Amino acid sequence: MRRRSVVIVAALAACSAAIAQPASPRDGLEHWPPAERAAFAALDRTLVETPRADRLLAWHQLLGEEPHVAGSEGDARVIEKIENAFREMGLEVQRHEFWALLAKPVAAELEIVGTPPVRLSVREDMLMQDAPSRHPNQNFGWNAYSGSGEVEAEVVYVNYGTKADFARLRAMGVETTGRIAIARYGGNFRGYKAKFAEAAGCVGLIIYTDPADSGYAKGIPYPEGGYSNSSCIERGSLSTLGYAGDPLTPGVEATRDAKRLDEREIDLPRIPVQPIGYGSAAKIMERMTGAGVPEGWQGGLPFAYRLTGGDGLRVRLKVEQTRAIVPTANVIATLRGTTEADKKVVIGCHHDAWGCGAADPLAGTIALMESARAFAEAAKAGHRPRRTLVFAAWGAEEFGIIGSTEWVEANRDNLIAHGVAYFNLDMASMGPNFAASGSPSLRRVLFAAAGVVPQARAKAPRTVLDDWLSRAADERFPGMPRVGSLGGGSDHIGFLCHVSVASASISAGGSRGNAYHSTYDTLPWYWKVVGEDYEPALLVTRMTTAAAARLAYAPLLPLDPSDYGPEAQRHLSDLGKRAVELGLWSRENEPAWMARLGSRAEAYRARALAVRGDLLAALDSGRLSGQGLAGVNRLLMAGDRAFLDEDGMPGRPWFRSLFVANDEDSGYASWMLPGLRRAIEQKDPAAAEEAAGRLIAAFKKLETLSEAMAEAVSGDR
Amino acid sequence: MRRRSVVIVAALAACSAAIAQPASPRDGLEHWPPAERAAFAALDRTLVETPRADRLLAWHQLLGEEPHVAGSEGDARVIEKIENAFREMGLEVQRHEFWALLAKPVAAELEIVGTPPVRLSVREDMLMQDAPSRHPNQNFGWNAYSGSGEVEAEVVYVNYGTKADFARLRAMGVETTGRIAIARYGGNFRGYKAKFAEAAGCVGLIIYTDPADSGYAKGIPYPEGGYSNSSCIERGSLSTLGYAGDPLTPGVEATRDAKRLDEREIDLPRIPVQPIGYGSAAKIMERMTGAGVPEGWQGGLPFAYRLTGGDGLRVRLKVEQTRAIVPTANVIATLRGTTEADKKVVIGCHHDAWGCGAADPLAGTIALMESARAFAEAAKAGHRPRRTLVFAAWGAEEFGIIGSTEWVEANRDNLIAHGVAYFNLDMASMGPNFAASGSPSLRRVLFAAAGVVPQARAKAPRTVLDDWLSRAADERFPGMPRVGSLGGGSDHIGFLCHVSVASASISAGGSRGNAYHSTYDTLPWYWKVVGEDYEPALLVTRMTTAAAARLAYAPLLPLDPSDYGPEAQRHLSDLGKRAVELGLWSRENEPAWMARLGSRAEAYRARALAVRGDLLAALDSGRLSGQGLAGVNRLLMAGDRAFLDEDGMPGRPWFRSLFVANDEDSGYASWMLPGLRRAIEQKDPAAAEEAAGRLIAAFKKLETLSEAMAEAVSGDR
Repeated sequence: MRRRSVVIVAALAACSAAIAQPASPRDGLEHWPPAERAAFAALDRTLVETPRADRLLAWHQLLGEEPHVAGSEGDARVIEKIENAFREMGLEVQRHEFWALLAKPVAAELEIVGTPPVRLSVREDMLMQDAPSRHPNQNFGWNAYSGSGEVEAEVVYVNYGTKADFARLRAMGVETTGRIAIARYGGNFRGYKAKFAEAAGCVGLIIYTDPADSGYAKGIPYPEGGYSNSSCIERGSLSTLGYAGDPLTPGVEATRDAKRLDEREIDLPRIPVQPIGYGSAAKIMERMTGAGVPEGWQGGLPFAYRLTGGDGLRVRLKVEQTRAIVPTANVIATLRGTTEADKKVVIGCHHDAWGCGAADPLAGTIALMESARAFAEAAKAGHRPRRTLVFAAWGAEEFGIIGSTEWVEANRDNLIAHGVAYFNLDMASMGPNFAASGSPSLRRVLFAAAGVVPQARAKAPRTVLDDWLSRAADERFPGMPRVGSLGGGSDHIGFLCHVSVASASISAGGSRGNAYHSTYDTLPWYWKVVGEDYEPALLVTRMTTAAAARLAYAPLLPLDPSDYGPEAQRHLSDLGKRAVELGLWSRENEPAWMARLGSRAEAYRARALAVRGDLLAALDSGRLSGQGLAGVNRLLMAGDRAFLDEDGMPGRPWFRSLFVANDEDSGYASWMLPGLRRAIEQKDPAAAEEAAGRLIAAFKKLETLSEAMAEAVSGDR
Repeated sequence: MRRRSVVIVAALAACSAAIAQPASPRDGLEHWPPAERAAFAALDRTLVETPRADRLLAWHQLLGEEPHVAGSEGDARVIEKIENAFREMGLEVQRHEFWALLAKPVAAELEIVGTPPVRLSVREDMLMQDAPSRHPNQNFGWNAYSGSGEVEAEVVYVNYGTKADFARLRAMGVETTGRIAIARYGGNFRGYKAKFAEAAGCVGLIIYTDPADSGYAKGIPYPEGGYSNSSCIERGSLSTLGYAGDPLTPGVEATRDAKRLDEREIDLPRIPVQPIGYGSAAKIMERMTGAGVPEGWQGGLPFAYRLTGGDGLRVRLKVEQTRAIVPTANVIATLRGTTEADKKVVIGCHHDAWGCGAADPLAGTIALMESARAFAEAAKAGHRPRRTLVFAAWGAEEFGIIGSTEWVEANRDNLIAHGVAYFNLDMASMGPNFAASGSPSLRRVLFAAAGVVPQARAKAPRTVLDDWLSRAADERFPGMPRVGSLGGGSDHIGFLCHVSVASASISAGGSRGNAYHSTYDTLPWYWKVVGEDYEPALLVTRMTTAAAARLAYAPLLPLDPSDYGPEAQRHLSDLGKRAVELGLWSRENEPAWMARLGSRAEAYRARALAVRGDLLAALDSGRLSGQGLAGVNRLLMAGDRAFLDEDGMPGRPWFRSLFVANDEDSGYASWMLPGLRRAIEQKDPAAAEEAAGRLIAAFKKLETLSEAMAEAVSGDR
């Protein structure tokens, strides 16, 4: 590998050169007092130019050379490497250890019963072309928190195993009780497949990767191409608890001595669950003899799918796992701020992986490391940030977003008071096409950053903003690209949903391939699929750095809560359609509170924009500085916290944002205005009105904040 | 088979009982003078009740027992059987013989070159469960009019082989010259695959049925289910000449001694073309090693598709066919009218097939026979129609819509003067879901018929209209079902596009399976897939009978040309969007003639509806009868001929309807307002304006006809 890396770096020396022009009209510098603008523009340029492809490759090789599942020895080695690296940069480093309930695979067996039985593979083929795929610490396929046990039964195909799929099976009168379910990956978070299968009486669950969803039907498989080959297995956690973090310590830090729930009381799967590749799945499914499947249930295997296997087909599944409370750690590196040092801008990405993790998580972790290096270099050159920058490499994300959640829980009050923003980089650098999802208050700072960062692999010089806009214009905000809603599934959850700190996920994609959670998620796979130029990772590093720099260095915080108004209206309009679809009300009979909430959001926005104009004018004229400025910044940060609800969501009190939660029926998707969404899904108009009342109250809080800002700049105090 | 049929008929005795109530408000009886309405209602009911499931089964067994390719001995036997059957009904029968250039398969060989070579099957597996699939006269797979020859070359995958697919290959720089193309069925008429492949320099073409399009990915294959198994082959003609009918006698009847073109001058394929099943295709395609395919080109075979085979993969293809001028025949049965005997209502379906033809064409032919029997019975009971009914079993449809075209060409002037309407039944009875496509002037009579025919297999009594409307409401005509546009590909073409006689295709579908043009298109396949109850065929027979009865018996012809107005507007709106899409003009700069044509169509419609009210009032009051009535009927019939253009389409003079033609780039689809459509596709605004001028003239003719009708009922003459 060493020799290869030299070639890669040599070939790409030129790529870092074409930096876009700084200080475009969309660079966000209006948040700077005129006197200091030029100095920041120069620093901004330095920060964007510091990241280097060869350093990104070096981080990748440092952290991706061996499997490092959370709690393993490989994990411990990665933690130590990250600590040393941050320390060498000159950052303050803290190892934040936590003790979490983690699962460990012991055995897995799958066979078609018969004389002789047909034994099915539960591990990937080792590849000559991919040395890390042959690493002795690579494990067989497993889903963390599966039940342990051995079952033998007939099989039933459940499509993606979504709530709707199981409802369809019931409607068709297909027996699921006592059977082993076969579900394909996709459509929901895998934990829900297990949850619904168990609820339907299934005695076991096999989850496989269908070639229609990420195998040969998508493109040429690995190692010739990048898509899942027949042995490729998606690992992953099955936890669907109503909170993120350690399963036994919801809401509190998982210290060694924390008060814990009894493991038997929490709702983890009881049935054995086993992930397999489509080669093994085909051997079972081609033997099924029941009725054909409904439209949309057929996948890419070369035969007609059947609902049931028939009594001539029995499968034996054995899964053995242990669960234990084991230590692992986050690594937290800090660059202390000068003027508002208590305020924190946090950039994070997890470090644990299911195998070597070249893509998940390291395609993000390497950008975290390189962004930290850029800021550390700037600080050494005398440019310390106004606010504190925190670089966090989270542990045990893969088991249930554990490390970041434990840190958020440990620092809850401090983050509510002083958390400026969180940027999450999980698996971020996967291609040249930039995308972002996140809080409305961070939209503008993302656009500003995109305006100064050069697009990766562009034929002619253009900014990320140009490219982003050309691919994803937002029909609701003409001339702006679309910022998506943040769903469940990564380390932003604690920040966004538990303490309501402005959060965004930054990423760049567009490569053709999939090795997700498999032993093929290796550097050779990454180089083949994403490329060897590290241009996507440079782009992500620069975007992260430029956005975080604006938040950390600007005297006036570039958070803009005014966009909560139109974003809430967008979601409200979607929810109105959903309610009509579900028959909760008709288009003509929309309840009055819908309009009331909509106009409250609109009124807030108008007021907030006017006040923002006053703020910038006060900044320009020098009227806004010192204590007044710090006070306004506190009010701006408080905007995101207007949606913090101490009561939490009904049934999920850990989720405390009125603005966003993850989908409680599928896990990966986001529920916007989740209290309202839940009431509508449950067809409960009274609950919907109650939820709308809470949102109206949140907008009233936002209006109060605007008024306070207006007063702060009116010059009277 | 005999024993089986007894069971089927016995089981279904009850089905024919539940006849819907006649004389609903939507039954079309407003076209009857009050004094005669009740008598027609009774006859209408008798005509709907006469068809029987056991007779339909008997027709099916009579005509579907052996392969009967046009020009073969089986074909001659089927012709004789149909003649005898019509004669036994008491109809006047004429054998209309014609001499056409037909192809005949001699040999086909396909192999992957190597030591040893891999020989690939070019015929279907014979099935134990399907005796007719084992009939000695079943042939190997072939495409009529293929070039003859032997080629050995590398391969290139061309997706569906559409114009767009070949353009995409050129854009990607993929070499096609000197290669054998592999195309999947679908997306266009197969003849265009050959035409475009030849134009791209390919030396041969293999066409296969992809499992994603009609094999296991759609459902369980035959014989367990109804979809294409791996050996199933779609036969079919490759002719894409700019006219229908005998290739050597465009525009004139193909009599034995007709003046003929030289075969070498006409544009039939020169390269060998071979259809195969997906089992054989997979053996070639799984050995291909070139680059992956673009999005949308992957099919359902279990590997990633490649654009090229690479030089390690050579295929040898040999096709041998003869072409000769051979006789075959239409069978024309006539039930002469009483009062307006020169006027003709024609019902037709072809009789020739690629194999036994249980579905194509017999699922329509059996309805033709049973409808003829119902009318013949009524005539024997003293109810002769006012106008002449013609029942036509066409020959050699499969080679290029030959028999019907030769008959239309032989009777051109007579049909232009006296043709009332044509109903086409090709492959009509394939399930319970009724659908119709056709001329705007026939919409109302189809709705009226649907209002008196009971829905097949309905749980509670409902009419075809209720069911049709529930599945396919027309957004442009509230409360009415959608009548589609008639595309290319069957025996209506001569009537609709050459002499502009009102035409409709009647069918009922919704079964799950496909044996199209294969040796599996047999009675056992039909019974398994469509069912053994013949309810779909009863529905089709009754719909045909009820619609034809209204046109043949009513004193005032129930043709309603007023719907040409809104239908033209619908197509004009689609063409406007197409022109914007192609960049011919922008939405804001639509040429003035677009609006002019639209408002002309609108003005005509308003006038025509008013005159129709006057006509019905005159009918009710007894003012309209005798010569006056006959005159109005001539004017109503002339409505369809307003779109007859003696010059024909540019480049395709045989196509003489200004309203509809088949798509000149794909064959199967329809081009509405084809002169305009062609000009827009070719981005020729001058030609578009010229075409619009012709359409405006057609609407002026229609307005003149309306004025003449208004005058006829004004009482002055």
